[in-house]
Amino acid sequence: MLRTHNLGELNIHNLNEQVTLSGWVQKTRDLGGMTFIDLRDRYGITQLAFNLEIEKELCLRARKLGREYVIQVAGKVIERSSKNKNIPTGEIEIQVEILTILNSSKTPPFTIESETDGGDELRMKYRYLDIRRKPVRENLILRHRVAASTRHYLDKQGFIEVETPYLIKSTPEGARDFVVPSRMNPQQFYALPQSPQTFKQLLMVGGIDKYYQIVKCFRDEDLRSDRQPEFTQIDCEMSFIDQEEILNTFEGLTRHLLKEVKGVELKKFPRITYDAAMQNYGSDKPDIRFDMKFIDLTKTCQGFGFDVFDKSDLVIGINVKGCAEFSRKKIDKLVDFVKSPQVGSTGLIYCKYNDDNSSKSSVDKFFDEKQRDFWAEKASCNSGDLLLIMSGEVNRTRKSLSALRLHLAEELKLRNPDEFAPLWVVDFPLLEWDEESERFHAMHHPFTSPKKEDIKKLDSHPSEVRANAYDLVLNGNEIGGGSIRIHDKELQKLMFKHLGFSDEEAQNQFGFLMEAFEYGAPPHGGVAFGFDRLCAILGGSESIRDFIAFPKNNSGRDIMIDSPSNIDSSQLDELNIKLKE
Amino acid sequence: MLRTHNLGELNIHNLNEQVTLSGWVQKTRDLGGMTFIDLRDRYGITQLAFNLEIEKELCLRARKLGREYVIQVAGKVIERSSKNKNIPTGEIEIQVEILTILNSSKTPPFTIESETDGGDELRMKYRYLDIRRKPVRENLILRHRVAASTRHYLDKQGFIEVETPYLIKSTPEGARDFVVPSRMNPQQFYALPQSPQTFKQLLMVGGIDKYYQIVKCFRDEDLRSDRQPEFTQIDCEMSFIDQEEILNTFEGLTRHLLKEVKGVELKKFPRITYDAAMQNYGSDKPDIRFDMKFIDLTKTCQGFGFDVFDKSDLVIGINVKGCAEFSRKKIDKLVDFVKSPQVGSTGLIYCKYNDDNSSKSSVDKFFDEKQRDFWAEKASCNSGDLLLIMSGEVNRTRKSLSALRLHLAEELKLRNPDEFAPLWVVDFPLLEWDEESERFHAMHHPFTSPKKEDIKKLDSHPSEVRANAYDLVLNGNEIGGGSIRIHDKELQKLMFKHLGFSDEEAQNQFGFLMEAFEYGAPPHGGVAFGFDRLCAILGGSESIRDFIAFPKNNSGRDIMIDSPSNIDSSQLDELNIKLKE
Repeated sequence: MLRTHNLGELNIHNLNEQVTLSGWVQKTRDLGGMTFIDLRDRYGITQLAFNLEIEKELCLRARKLGREYVIQVAGKVIERSSKNKNIPTGEIEIQVEILTILNSSKTPPFTIESETDGGDELRMKYRYLDIRRKPVRENLILRHRVAASTRHYLDKQGFIEVETPYLIKSTPEGARDFVVPSRMNPQQFYALPQSPQTFKQLLMVGGIDKYYQIVKCFRDEDLRSDRQPEFTQIDCEMSFIDQEEILNTFEGLTRHLLKEVKGVELKKFPRITYDAAMQNYGSDKPDIRFDMKFIDLTKTCQGFGFDVFDKSDLVIGINVKGCAEFSRKKIDKLVDFVKSPQVGSTGLIYCKYNDDNSSKSSVDKFFDEKQRDFWAEKASCNSGDLLLIMSGEVNRTRKSLSALRLHLAEELKLRNPDEFAPLWVVDFPLLEWDEESERFHAMHHPFTSPKKEDIKKLDSHPSEVRANAYDLVLNGNEIGGGSIRIHDKELQKLMFKHLGFSDEEAQNQFGFLMEAFEYGAPPHGGVAFGFDRLCAILGGSESIRDFIAFPKNNSGRDIMIDSPSNIDSSQLDELNIKLKE
Repeated sequence: MLRTHNLGELNIHNLNEQVTLSGWVQKTRDLGGMTFIDLRDRYGITQLAFNLEIEKELCLRARKLGREYVIQVAGKVIERSSKNKNIPTGEIEIQVEILTILNSSKTPPFTIESETDGGDELRMKYRYLDIRRKPVRENLILRHRVAASTRHYLDKQGFIEVETPYLIKSTPEGARDFVVPSRMNPQQFYALPQSPQTFKQLLMVGGIDKYYQIVKCFRDEDLRSDRQPEFTQIDCEMSFIDQEEILNTFEGLTRHLLKEVKGVELKKFPRITYDAAMQNYGSDKPDIRFDMKFIDLTKTCQGFGFDVFDKSDLVIGINVKGCAEFSRKKIDKLVDFVKSPQVGSTGLIYCKYNDDNSSKSSVDKFFDEKQRDFWAEKASCNSGDLLLIMSGEVNRTRKSLSALRLHLAEELKLRNPDEFAPLWVVDFPLLEWDEESERFHAMHHPFTSPKKEDIKKLDSHPSEVRANAYDLVLNGNEIGGGSIRIHDKELQKLMFKHLGFSDEEAQNQFGFLMEAFEYGAPPHGGVAFGFDRLCAILGGSESIRDFIAFPKNNSGRDIMIDSPSNIDSSQLDELNIKLKE
């Protein structure tokens, strides 16, 4: 037996017990006649004590131990003279009698402490050392707890976890597939799933009326920061339900997770339509931990000779509470921000409402005090508030003001990671126009059902057709999304037609699903949560990479194992493929 | 709301309630003035009643419903006149008031009943219909329960489920990898994991001292029946443990699963060494639900002028209890069996111990009554027993007699699927000789530690070196296996050398692991369970395919979605590969 206890559990109640412990040397301190070692494992740190006078040889050996050596000790639990109230084991130490070195260690390339001196690349290369650090370890444990709580909740609701296959069929729709050459079926390829979408729908046709799976998915996209080629989904589907039941079920799941994992009790989630979200926040995933809703000033602002406003489709503002005292420099920085390439706007108008009830804007030439007070009334600005206004083409202006809104909230520290503000965004458009291919794409996916009352607009006003589709947004991040699916073959055919699929293409790619729909498909719908993102938000972080045990970098490389890599030509031969010169 | 209740929950306590139900039409029966429909969902069957006299139009519509139509009904729960005590809902029926057809169905290609007329291929093609059948559905639900129970047990023991990556690095050691071309890293490939072996070891180096994962693994092997290119493992690893603790932990898991899922209480699992298993059963995965241990008769049988025995390295027998009355024909069939290509033996000697205390063997010419009685004594044969003897080269003879032993047990119905007989096989050899490559291979894998006391034999008698490796066997199937790993870089190097790796190859393939071992790797070991097989055995079946939602056939094809398939040449271009002509 290599240990009788872990390093987080001994305390004053164990006094005088003989124990055996194992772990990593975190730190060695020599204080005159004593040597103290902080021994670390997953559970905590326990102090070891060596007395130079009493056990000279043992103490000298202890002094030679390097950082991250793996040792085993046997000894007695004694009370510390100077106690550390910050850790559970802080009242005791071990009077060591036997010391065994289980493994030595080279000096690690960065310090294994909560705050480390290791850069990102170095920590990725030695990820196994990074995982020894408490924050990374805690992230992985949090992830485990979120997964376990998810399963508990869904199991209790009668959901069945069903594993769907990883070696499936490539479909050109959507993002790029990773493919896998088949040796046994020459010249043919499997694809790795971008999601188990069709399989979960087939499970519904198969009568498994409540399905879930925590499952890896794959997308071969150019990686922006914080995107991974493989990622994890909580994938769910239900039959014989309407949208209301789905929203309630997964609102329940989210509430359960927040309660179990963070101890936070959430109220009923607000719901807004996609249109309202765009109007009020310029985003389909608004962060509502803070207010700053958009105020439409188009009519109020036009016709005063200010060309910029007069030529705009939309003039909107946000009320930045209590920020009238922003300096000229600070406001200039905001202007720089909106003009930066990431936002791409041309400018920003401000109006300060001073404590003496006067106001001052950057367009006083065109708008007198009275007009500015009229703005204040519309935007509920009081003394001390700052009104920021942007204008231009509708979607662009909304997008820019949304970016500014988030930027300000960040600066004003309104995005508290310990506060959780979920909401449902519903009634998404069914289709969105793709400039590049010059055709409509499914905004969610081709299996999403249109709202019954909008089907008649499919030909005349396709962009106005709303879908039975919904997103769950948490703190400005889309953490889940889903829809009520089409379960009728004719409607599915119609959808494929509107998405520009020929009959042959539709048959080729989704023939099996269309055929399944002929054998009594039930009404069904579902949702998928981005599990990495969900864990990150629950962990109070915006970066998913910190919540993945072995992440890849922005070139899709695992720099620890040095993958991807070259393979033998014999392997290529067997797979009937060649490298392109 | 599409249903107020599912189809398995209404009973006599719900009398007179107004309910709404949805499901599939299983069967329609017209009995004079009444029409009855069995409506089915995942939870059961509820009978719907339509009265031609009272609700003519409704009843006529009901009569037109085809099998597998999806319908919704509203009506009142009433007591049945003729009750069905075999199902929970058998005392009630629904007096239907409203009938809505949610979806129609073509006539399914096979009957959706517990016993179906569909062949294997047809059922695979329409797997979504097959899943509607109770036995298949129950298998998937069993699998879910086994997974959930596994997680409950391991979570309680402090294990953390950590997701390891699917896009990893190809290694020529072991079975063939599936590979994935990287678009972003031209000419390079990822591999899909054959197991998360190295990652779980890195997690141990990272201090996650109890890891598990229920995870998909991939092997591109030629598929024998009942092998799948993708399969699922319960993968576990622990640090600071010895073999005894691992065996106890996973014996505990197995006991827990049998209790939770099957209601079976198991006693402490027997343990035997690999050598003893081979001697006693000729197999490293003996089925011990029945006895028929091998009896060594080599010395007893040699020197009597019977050439076959005299020239053999080994003469062994099994006592087939109570089968002395086997007819000549029956014994000839056994001889045919051992001579069949799958066994490949040359013959079989029998000796019947009759009820009148006489005996009769096929070699009476060489062995008189006294000799035969001596055999009986050695083999504990009593009156009525049948002794079957085989001889020849050691390993071959054991293998043949093992096949005969299982064959007889099958015939005598000694392999009861409701009985569960687990055992541990320990002390596996470290290395096994591979005829083809003319070198030693790791019997388990290259990370398995040799027994300390055997290391000195690595050079002189490599085949005698035993490993700290163990298998868990259940009903003649290996359901799990594992080992204590090497955690010392020098020993790992030595192992790679003995496995014929050059320093460069070892560095190239496992450099990251060897490097990790330099930074304080703890002693560790683990186990992996074949999850598909485990579910099959718990479900009383030998076929894993029945316990996989969407299995592939023996050519690795998913015939439902018709995968693998051809992909666009533009896709190949992007991936920098070409098809070989």
